[in-house]
Amino acid sequence: MTQTLSQDWKKELTDQKATYAFEEGGAKMKNILGGKGANLSEMTSLGFPVPPGFVVTTEVCNVYSALGKMPDGLGDEVLQRTEELAKKMDKKFGSSDSPLLLSVRSGARISMPGMMDTVLNLGLNDEAVKGLAKESGDERFAYDAYRRFIQMFSDVVMGLPKHEFEHLIADKKKEVGVVFDKDLTAEHLKALVDDFKDKFRKEAGREFPTDAKEQLLLAVEAVFKSWNNPRAMVYREKERIPHDLGTAVNVQAMVFGNMGDGSGTGVAFTRDYNTGEKKPVGDFLINAQGEDVVAGIRTPQPLQEMENVFPELWKELQDISTKLENHYTDMQDMEFTVEKGKLFMLQTRTGKRTAQSAVKIAVDMVEEGLIDEKTAVMRIAPEQLDKLLHPYIPEDVKKKADSEGKLLAKGTNASPGAATGIVVFEANDAVHKAHEGHQVILVRPETTPDDAHGMAVAKGILTSTGGPSSHAALVARGWGIPCIVGCEALKIDLAKKKVTVGDVTFGEGDKITIDGGTGEVLLGELELHEPTDLSPETKTILGWADQYRKLGVYANADTPTDAQRARNFGAEGIGLCRTEHMFMEKDRLPIVQEMIMIASAAESGHRELTKLEDSLKGVNKESRQHRDTSEQIAKLKAKVEKPWNKYNDLLGKLLPIQRGDFSGILEAMKGQWVIIRLLDPPLHEFLPAFGDLLVDVTRLKTLQGVDSGAYDKALSEIKARRGDDATLEQLEELLEKVESMKESNPMLGQRFCRLGIVFPEIYKMQVRAIMEAASELQKKGIDAKPEIMIPGIGSVEEMKLCRAQAEAVIAEVEKEQGLKVEHKIGTMIELPRATTVAGELSQVADFFSFGTNDLTQTTYGYSRDDAAGTFMPVYLEKEVLKRDPFQVVDRKGVGRLMKMAVTEGRESNEGLEVGICGEHGGEPESVDFCHSLGLNYVSCSPFRVPIARLAAAHAAINQA
Amino acid sequence: MTQTLSQDWKKELTDQKATYAFEEGGAKMKNILGGKGANLSEMTSLGFPVPPGFVVTTEVCNVYSALGKMPDGLGDEVLQRTEELAKKMDKKFGSSDSPLLLSVRSGARISMPGMMDTVLNLGLNDEAVKGLAKESGDERFAYDAYRRFIQMFSDVVMGLPKHEFEHLIADKKKEVGVVFDKDLTAEHLKALVDDFKDKFRKEAGREFPTDAKEQLLLAVEAVFKSWNNPRAMVYREKERIPHDLGTAVNVQAMVFGNMGDGSGTGVAFTRDYNTGEKKPVGDFLINAQGEDVVAGIRTPQPLQEMENVFPELWKELQDISTKLENHYTDMQDMEFTVEKGKLFMLQTRTGKRTAQSAVKIAVDMVEEGLIDEKTAVMRIAPEQLDKLLHPYIPEDVKKKADSEGKLLAKGTNASPGAATGIVVFEANDAVHKAHEGHQVILVRPETTPDDAHGMAVAKGILTSTGGPSSHAALVARGWGIPCIVGCEALKIDLAKKKVTVGDVTFGEGDKITIDGGTGEVLLGELELHEPTDLSPETKTILGWADQYRKLGVYANADTPTDAQRARNFGAEGIGLCRTEHMFMEKDRLPIVQEMIMIASAAESGHRELTKLEDSLKGVNKESRQHRDTSEQIAKLKAKVEKPWNKYNDLLGKLLPIQRGDFSGILEAMKGQWVIIRLLDPPLHEFLPAFGDLLVDVTRLKTLQGVDSGAYDKALSEIKARRGDDATLEQLEELLEKVESMKESNPMLGQRFCRLGIVFPEIYKMQVRAIMEAASELQKKGIDAKPEIMIPGIGSVEEMKLCRAQAEAVIAEVEKEQGLKVEHKIGTMIELPRATTVAGELSQVADFFSFGTNDLTQTTYGYSRDDAAGTFMPVYLEKEVLKRDPFQVVDRKGVGRLMKMAVTEGRESNEGLEVGICGEHGGEPESVDFCHSLGLNYVSCSPFRVPIARLAAAHAAINQA
Repeated sequence: MTQTLSQDWKKELTDQKATYAFEEGGAKMKNILGGKGANLSEMTSLGFPVPPGFVVTTEVCNVYSALGKMPDGLGDEVLQRTEELAKKMDKKFGSSDSPLLLSVRSGARISMPGMMDTVLNLGLNDEAVKGLAKESGDERFAYDAYRRFIQMFSDVVMGLPKHEFEHLIADKKKEVGVVFDKDLTAEHLKALVDDFKDKFRKEAGREFPTDAKEQLLLAVEAVFKSWNNPRAMVYREKERIPHDLGTAVNVQAMVFGNMGDGSGTGVAFTRDYNTGEKKPVGDFLINAQGEDVVAGIRTPQPLQEMENVFPELWKELQDISTKLENHYTDMQDMEFTVEKGKLFMLQTRTGKRTAQSAVKIAVDMVEEGLIDEKTAVMRIAPEQLDKLLHPYIPEDVKKKADSEGKLLAKGTNASPGAATGIVVFEANDAVHKAHEGHQVILVRPETTPDDAHGMAVAKGILTSTGGPSSHAALVARGWGIPCIVGCEALKIDLAKKKVTVGDVTFGEGDKITIDGGTGEVLLGELELHEPTDLSPETKTILGWADQYRKLGVYANADTPTDAQRARNFGAEGIGLCRTEHMFMEKDRLPIVQEMIMIASAAESGHRELTKLEDSLKGVNKESRQHRDTSEQIAKLKAKVEKPWNKYNDLLGKLLPIQRGDFSGILEAMKGQWVIIRLLDPPLHEFLPAFGDLLVDVTRLKTLQGVDSGAYDKALSEIKARRGDDATLEQLEELLEKVESMKESNPMLGQRFCRLGIVFPEIYKMQVRAIMEAASELQKKGIDAKPEIMIPGIGSVEEMKLCRAQAEAVIAEVEKEQGLKVEHKIGTMIELPRATTVAGELSQVADFFSFGTNDLTQTTYGYSRDDAAGTFMPVYLEKEVLKRDPFQVVDRKGVGRLMKMAVTEGRESNEGLEVGICGEHGGEPESVDFCHSLGLNYVSCSPFRVPIARLAAAHAAINQA
Repeated sequence: MTQTLSQDWKKELTDQKATYAFEEGGAKMKNILGGKGANLSEMTSLGFPVPPGFVVTTEVCNVYSALGKMPDGLGDEVLQRTEELAKKMDKKFGSSDSPLLLSVRSGARISMPGMMDTVLNLGLNDEAVKGLAKESGDERFAYDAYRRFIQMFSDVVMGLPKHEFEHLIADKKKEVGVVFDKDLTAEHLKALVDDFKDKFRKEAGREFPTDAKEQLLLAVEAVFKSWNNPRAMVYREKERIPHDLGTAVNVQAMVFGNMGDGSGTGVAFTRDYNTGEKKPVGDFLINAQGEDVVAGIRTPQPLQEMENVFPELWKELQDISTKLENHYTDMQDMEFTVEKGKLFMLQTRTGKRTAQSAVKIAVDMVEEGLIDEKTAVMRIAPEQLDKLLHPYIPEDVKKKADSEGKLLAKGTNASPGAATGIVVFEANDAVHKAHEGHQVILVRPETTPDDAHGMAVAKGILTSTGGPSSHAALVARGWGIPCIVGCEALKIDLAKKKVTVGDVTFGEGDKITIDGGTGEVLLGELELHEPTDLSPETKTILGWADQYRKLGVYANADTPTDAQRARNFGAEGIGLCRTEHMFMEKDRLPIVQEMIMIASAAESGHRELTKLEDSLKGVNKESRQHRDTSEQIAKLKAKVEKPWNKYNDLLGKLLPIQRGDFSGILEAMKGQWVIIRLLDPPLHEFLPAFGDLLVDVTRLKTLQGVDSGAYDKALSEIKARRGDDATLEQLEELLEKVESMKESNPMLGQRFCRLGIVFPEIYKMQVRAIMEAASELQKKGIDAKPEIMIPGIGSVEEMKLCRAQAEAVIAEVEKEQGLKVEHKIGTMIELPRATTVAGELSQVADFFSFGTNDLTQTTYGYSRDDAAGTFMPVYLEKEVLKRDPFQVVDRKGVGRLMKMAVTEGRESNEGLEVGICGEHGGEPESVDFCHSLGLNYVSCSPFRVPIARLAAAHAAINQA
């Protein structure tokens, strides 16, 4: 938008309109009216009791942002609308005679609770306050409203320090000798208003604006400005809300919930946001303004208590609730105020809810006939399901903790899931400690939008005040962070960074565990478990999702347990069974290490030998060449025989172990495909760390001959740590070996299928183990379906060679076992070069599986192991990267290469099976992309299988 | 080819013919007749004295290879041709009456000297030998021919051990009491023939074939077989000759150079293959067969001496030489035999020559009007020019070596260039040592084709026998390896692996230096220099090449010296000036190290500070937010100020140094573009090695408190080695820093433009240094033209950010200096992702430069630092890779991405300058590819600039 807007800005607006009275708008106009404005309009149209008002559109906010000032003529229009409003109310704006008071609130298209600014009681001045006093018959109320307005206006519109006004109140209370605000009389408040105005004059360098019109225009501008305040920016980034949506401004006639005990205010949900149960829940406060509920300063009553206090209004509210839910066909989150016995609806919006609640509500609403199955599926954000699989404290762990007296306190269960971590008290500390790799629990009296960045990185949130609608609770639920609020037993000393609960004191850095589902706070780090099954409602939703999705959903699993878990979660196959973890297991590692230490000598000798033997083919036995070569062969054989035999012995030991590994997984997944990846990581990863060895050897060599006592002591320390009986000579030999295998860039080194080409015996052993396991199962009548995946293919020649090697072994096993096992041989596509030759590659591969971790690594040239500790945080901060490409697949670069591979791979092999087994396979946006590529399946960790199923359905529906 | 060939194989042949009499063929039929056969046919047609014969085509060889046996009917056809030949010669094949004797020789399309087999004197048996004796009037000659034939046939055709026959000769000489072969009489030889036949019977298990027809067919088959013998395969691989060309078989009537002193044999070149001078050179041996010259067993006379011996024949040979050269318009390499005063031409072919000779001949032939300039340009293989830039021994080094008595001996200068390295005696040892990273000089009495693999890896070759046409000399010249032959002063003891020259003895592993240009052998390792200029002829050729080429040729140079050298060699700009080497220089490294150690703290603190300061913008000064943030800022400032100032101080020290670096290069290249790459490698590369530090610290910590004497000693050792006064505490701190900066995969880590984004001050300093240097030069009237290259861009956002950063500095410098400097800002394309977003990237980059080293690394996922030591040799051996993609650009994968980048980059920025600065930029095949991509220039090391100029011309002509 350019400066020309200043004149013609209205022409660019929808219908060329900058403001809408509530009667003119509706729910469908969310984009320009914002959520709040659209719903207030809708409720007005539906005939519910909404205080009248109008909306300045989000588009005007964008004009404001572009211009950096209020657009020409906007002020006049706002004042014109206000005049109309006054007329409607039969009041006068800024007048002492029946003054019109206004609330000025922000309202973006997507709700950003508490992120932007609000001014209440606007329109009060020295004259109007008298009118309010007269009209309400309560002078104290009027002056309290006035002083609140000045305080709020000073803070929100002028940015003056709120606490200075709080000091003045405190001073006043001291001066007149009272303890509570409510004990200040009208006279005291009058004096306080004068003090406030003096303070305002001093701080702002001008008189407090008494002109109601000026107040209004400044407030509207403040709301516009608040769109780009830092906390709003942080929130939008976390929530991935575009920065260019803008906020609308809702100008509405005030109603007062603080006009005595016949007044009140509350928040009501049509169903339980925690469980999804169909019953009204919420908070209610008598004689309070709405902000008091949200701010979490006063702990409110449960909503139901309203039935006792205002039985008629309760009925009316229930009626409105039902109608609204039916109208919107979704659970509603409403704000209401009771002013002297009259109910006013101040807001309705789709209610935030826990994942569990979301699922139950969606399923219930289908049963109730409110929505159809497809709508139900689309109601659940895939990522939300992760919350259903939150860690929990196992029964026995809990019992033990209880018996040990670890239970400290119980608060309100505000967001489910258990979390354990170190205590921090400040948002900045949370960020700092999380960055260092700690899991942190943010503990505070209450949270405010200023704490958003700290909350975003916390594993759990714990507050001592506030109810389930408090800021902490709302945000935690939205982000799926376990949270307990209102845990009043905690005495938090922020200055000392200490918490006292009864006679226990803990502080920053101490470990605690919280259970957001029960509200329990426990001392120390408790062992948390992952859930193994889904609720019936979740299964129902996922069953519906399965009808829509086109993508298969496989799981990445290396053990029978994981495989079984994945199957329980709905996996239809194993997309990635890594074999390296099997090598790492304690009982095997010594064999693996020994094998690796001689692999190179054995294989290279064998290779040399084979080459020489091949060179003899067709050569006359009496020629010089034959004689010379035969001599060379004999010499080489003598040298190679020992390592070669040892190597094969060790591989022979590994074979039955591997066979057992594969047998377990193939059995767990019987009838489904199991893609087993042959060994992939650099071999030296299995050897001991270089640095440790270097230190050990250096220590011993330094002490040798210098101090034999110290030497012996060092050696026995080293032996004890290593758990073996190594001598210095052996350690030196090991060090030399490890050093010789060190690579500058192991991620680009001796790994992938390169292992299978340089060390063919290892791959052969693995293929044999797979095929033997499958054959044995088949003999038992178990349908084992292995797919052999060759990792890191970059050229067609590699694939041909590895395939031929594997097929030779398979043929051997088939012959030995006397049966054939259905199988496939394919490759991971994880190097850019593979994508460029996919058309040829698919002619020798039965399947492709995108290894997007490595593909992202090589396409970007980002080391995944290093990026997070070096440039990645700066890149994200400077928005060089909008997202971490290791988390969300980069469609433009990596995705383009993937598309090339799919298209060209299928062109020359129509039946090519293509999937993805990188971590992106369980990330909803990436799943969406995989659907658009037409992949056969996505594969992800067992816990993400439900997410992937749902995401796949979303993708299919969205892209249909 | 399939088995059906057995019947119908002839139908698949050109003109359906399997054999051609010489009269039927011609030079244009090289593909089917092979080089030798085609040229014998051509000479026959031209009326030169060629012994009659016929050719079995190369296509028949391929049929043979496919069938694994002689095709049906081929034998009959060969015998039919032989009958015709006998008739033409008025002789009878296999008869005692005027027997026809034949030579059977291989002859491929591309010459493979000595690689395949030959049988001479074929047709001899117990009857025919009598006829030969009668006809020649020399019984001794006849039986000598017979025993030679049996020996050759046994070796070549039957593969029997040659040395066993040599033993029989030795036994015979002992028995009759003579020393030399020539002293054996006809009777002795007759007896020897019987011994030979006995031996044959014993070894081969059959009688020696007396049927001439059988002899012939077995010999033809032996030639076919020899096409795929191991040494031929090795040769073809080294020379990149396809394996499916096949060899022809030339069957030709024998002439004898060993019929007494009126006979002889020789090799003649029409011009000097060493210098290119227009004068006949070659070798000549009286009373010898042709093989004796090539075998290097007898050291022959220079060709010119023939003028004295056979003045008439000399004239005839000169006449034929001139006619052949004019006919073929190229320098010829001819074999001839004089039989009892009559000259026979046995072969003519394009003569191999040194690079220097090739260039001179091409230029001379243009002057002589024999060829045009384009032909001259195409006559020089670009890679050959590398030989003109061979290292040499500088005058002073040579003088010093001489004065120190290092000159050991002088042999024949067989292939120019100096080489230094360790002595090896066996081809296998050469390969082994070269693989270990040694430069080796292969020292042997003589070489044979069996040594080819060792010669291929040698830096120099030295033989004690043989002349300039010996195997060693021919191969060395062809491959451009410095070589000395016939250095008879060397007494080589192969068994002991020792050489004695006078009273000096040296052996395996000792260092020597040879000068193939002078024939001098020197003891020890001499310092070699690189040449700085080109010969006038080379300049002429390159001048012609420049007319044809479309690609610009730039050089990679980091210093003014290199830049000047590049300019001398014809560089038209600098395509890559790396700035990291400048950081490494001794006087700067301490500053750089100190700078790096605090860079992170300084930059991150500064970043945090800027962020906080930005967050204050528009926030009221009295707000809580303002107050809190201001407090934070103050705290942070106190913490950051010191490192920030120190950091800037250090950068301030580097600035004038860098300015000086750039000034020198820009001045050397005045008027031409100089592309300067901002800092690229991981910063930790500038820090001390982790392992060393770890050892130092561990040693000291181990001794601390254990043995104070040993501790002090260790510390002073460490201090002495480091050249500083570090304490244990300082070393520990340094170790911690180095460890914290260690990356798992530095090639994919904190490097590239990531440095400029995480540490902007470093890039800013560099940009300032460049622009200040250019400004200062401009003020002096020197036309400095810098291009600023941002390395490792992967996303458009990176480029935008780095460009904006650079432009801000440029604007500052322009303001300070009061002038504008013409410049460009572009990027290296060295990550696959850059190629996928090239269309967007070119909108914010003035130029692209392909960094094909890194692009190959990431596209293949091959670490360049590790591949050679791990899988690459196996890959090349197993032909998983045909070539090392770090040497020759991989067109299919990397090339495809390059093409995408060029096409899409230019689509959105028509004027985009695109070049290449990876090492491929000087490799002829890669240059050819760059031409096909339509790049603006290639950039390579200064020494490869001439090669690139010529390669670019070749590409333009070939692709026209």
